[in-house]
Amino acid sequence: MNYRISDKLASMKPSAIREIFKSLTDPSIIAFAAGNPSPLTFPSEEIAEITARILKESPTVALQYGITEGYPKLRRAVAERLKARFSHSLTDNTLLITSGGQQALELTAKVMCSEGDAVICENPTFIGALNAFRSVGAKIVGVPILDDGYDIDLLEKACIEHPEAKILYTIPTFHNPIGICTSYEKRKQIYAIAKKYSLIILEDNPYGELRFEGEDIPTIKSMDTEGIVVYCGSFSKILSSGMRVGFALAPDPVAQKMVVAKQVEDVHTNQLFQMVCAEYMEKYDLDAHIERAKDIYRKKCSLMLSALDEYMPVCVKYTRPCGGLFVYVTLPSHINLSEFVKKALELGVAVVPGTAFNSDESMGSSSFRITYSTPSEEQIVRGVKILSELVSTYMK
Amino acid sequence: MNYRISDKLASMKPSAIREIFKSLTDPSIIAFAAGNPSPLTFPSEEIAEITARILKESPTVALQYGITEGYPKLRRAVAERLKARFSHSLTDNTLLITSGGQQALELTAKVMCSEGDAVICENPTFIGALNAFRSVGAKIVGVPILDDGYDIDLLEKACIEHPEAKILYTIPTFHNPIGICTSYEKRKQIYAIAKKYSLIILEDNPYGELRFEGEDIPTIKSMDTEGIVVYCGSFSKILSSGMRVGFALAPDPVAQKMVVAKQVEDVHTNQLFQMVCAEYMEKYDLDAHIERAKDIYRKKCSLMLSALDEYMPVCVKYTRPCGGLFVYVTLPSHINLSEFVKKALELGVAVVPGTAFNSDESMGSSSFRITYSTPSEEQIVRGVKILSELVSTYMK
Repeated sequence: MNYRISDKLASMKPSAIREIFKSLTDPSIIAFAAGNPSPLTFPSEEIAEITARILKESPTVALQYGITEGYPKLRRAVAERLKARFSHSLTDNTLLITSGGQQALELTAKVMCSEGDAVICENPTFIGALNAFRSVGAKIVGVPILDDGYDIDLLEKACIEHPEAKILYTIPTFHNPIGICTSYEKRKQIYAIAKKYSLIILEDNPYGELRFEGEDIPTIKSMDTEGIVVYCGSFSKILSSGMRVGFALAPDPVAQKMVVAKQVEDVHTNQLFQMVCAEYMEKYDLDAHIERAKDIYRKKCSLMLSALDEYMPVCVKYTRPCGGLFVYVTLPSHINLSEFVKKALELGVAVVPGTAFNSDESMGSSSFRITYSTPSEEQIVRGVKILSELVSTYMK
Repeated sequence: MNYRISDKLASMKPSAIREIFKSLTDPSIIAFAAGNPSPLTFPSEEIAEITARILKESPTVALQYGITEGYPKLRRAVAERLKARFSHSLTDNTLLITSGGQQALELTAKVMCSEGDAVICENPTFIGALNAFRSVGAKIVGVPILDDGYDIDLLEKACIEHPEAKILYTIPTFHNPIGICTSYEKRKQIYAIAKKYSLIILEDNPYGELRFEGEDIPTIKSMDTEGIVVYCGSFSKILSSGMRVGFALAPDPVAQKMVVAKQVEDVHTNQLFQMVCAEYMEKYDLDAHIERAKDIYRKKCSLMLSALDEYMPVCVKYTRPCGGLFVYVTLPSHINLSEFVKKALELGVAVVPGTAFNSDESMGSSSFRITYSTPSEEQIVRGVKILSELVSTYMK
């Protein structure tokens, strides 16, 4: 049989991160590569308590088909939280529950992009978003990212050169993979540019609740007076990633089409954990739980940065995140990245090469992403030492 | 803002069934329209027991990210069951866990169909499948269905006239909406035609475990010596529909691309209920549970057919299912279907008009689908009486 795969899928490869993740079942490997939250941040006892109660008191609601838009009580609770926490206006917007934040990105791409339309994004950026855009046949236009977000001049140039662009994708808060935040000033400029060129902004904010240092910067959605921002968030980094519950707050006409697209993908998100999230928000103190998660990440990030400061040769640069899960490390340009990553794995440390995040797959990179989230404190220090010593072998 | 929705989504409307389902929150309406399984068939106490144990013993596995292909233990258990129960060969095939059977259909369509490719299907057929095909830009070629499955001559004619066809979609066992089974002879003919015209058969079998009368007919997948059948099944009708756990057994090259497509949709299916399904299959007797479910449906179906036999005017035809959830009722052609369905709802009975299942949305229908699954015994008899009396008003 000659399998005639569709145009869009024929050229797509499995996510490099997912593939690395699969290889991480070996517990002797230090897992700097994964994007998993720390299991210490999952309130498993509370989740067990709520789950037992739901399955005792409302088993039929939990086990029966639900509504595509999401479990009504959770939709209300998330919408109210976004209003209170981030000053998002709910007028003319619909809150949808999605199967993880990933589905919110993919649905937005599917609803907005016809074959040959373009998505403008930061380069590098989240590989799951890039693959979602590729899967709907969209062209990807990468724009360099600086320490405070998009290079604004190049962003405007991209908008002029690509009138077929429909979406402006951004992770303004604790960017993946780089870890930086877009400044308030730049957020306003990004909004103005999207408005000028009739683009939908896709604001991806999976890490926004995990700021462990400094002050919150207003979301772009909070500035959305014109109804041009689709905002995506998730419970993956605060309650459980395995349960696949995320959400999108989108202008009504976009949200209505996202519902149609979601119907054909999975009918609705699993009902039980939607109920668990709603109950958790009602009966427990989500903010206090998030504070505990931030304490964990603050401590582990600080340990990783101290180890980098102590052991890493000065020719190596790295970001100093104030939240989220990632540090982005840039090697001197004479070091061959793919060789370095391969050697690191042989030495027992898995990292994600920057090439995985490139908007143009043929581009090179001198950087790699590491996380302090899941490794133990001992592993963080040992892993950084191993990477530092490996860099040193290139310095002789 | 002028929202420039993508070509594919701009023309798609929400599923008529889902929309009817949303209106079914009114408990005074007899819910003949929904496709929900009976909540009596959910083993909620056992699910509660297993869930509590998993969240106590392995909370991190349950709450952390999993693998796109599915929870390994569940993949093995489902594959072994398909081999033992339906004689499916596992050689050169991959078993994937999907977020309900719906996702398995959508992923197959996405992987096989480029814009303008065609899918050949029974007409009428499952609306969720039709919308999945539409969502990837596929043309839909409907072929009439007879009492024993596809009109084989017209099926071959469609294959000749549509060389752009990639998929031959079929629900051979307890067809939705019609409720009939494709004969063994026709299953072999369908397989031979797909082989001759290089089509992938998408065999959708959500109800295959629910035969409450007669003998099993071999699945088309059990005849698949060439690797041309993608087989889709689900736990929705036997353990829980709200948990969204289904599966596909697909030839390796197709399955590999389905994994890539699934990664961008939801990363993986919710981990906890995959574990629950695996534990249920290991620790409890799934076959005995299915027997209990079949007893429930046998009794309710028999009651509905008796009521139809007793009250419905003889000019009305209906199918006599041996399994699954649906009876398909055909009115005399002079009755205006949409008016009839509207009047039925006013009288407190919700049914799904046959037009919702048409492969060509502009076609008419004289039929409607009713279910015996969720209504009570009293509602089944009362609902059939109301529909029968409504038909009688057209006979004067």
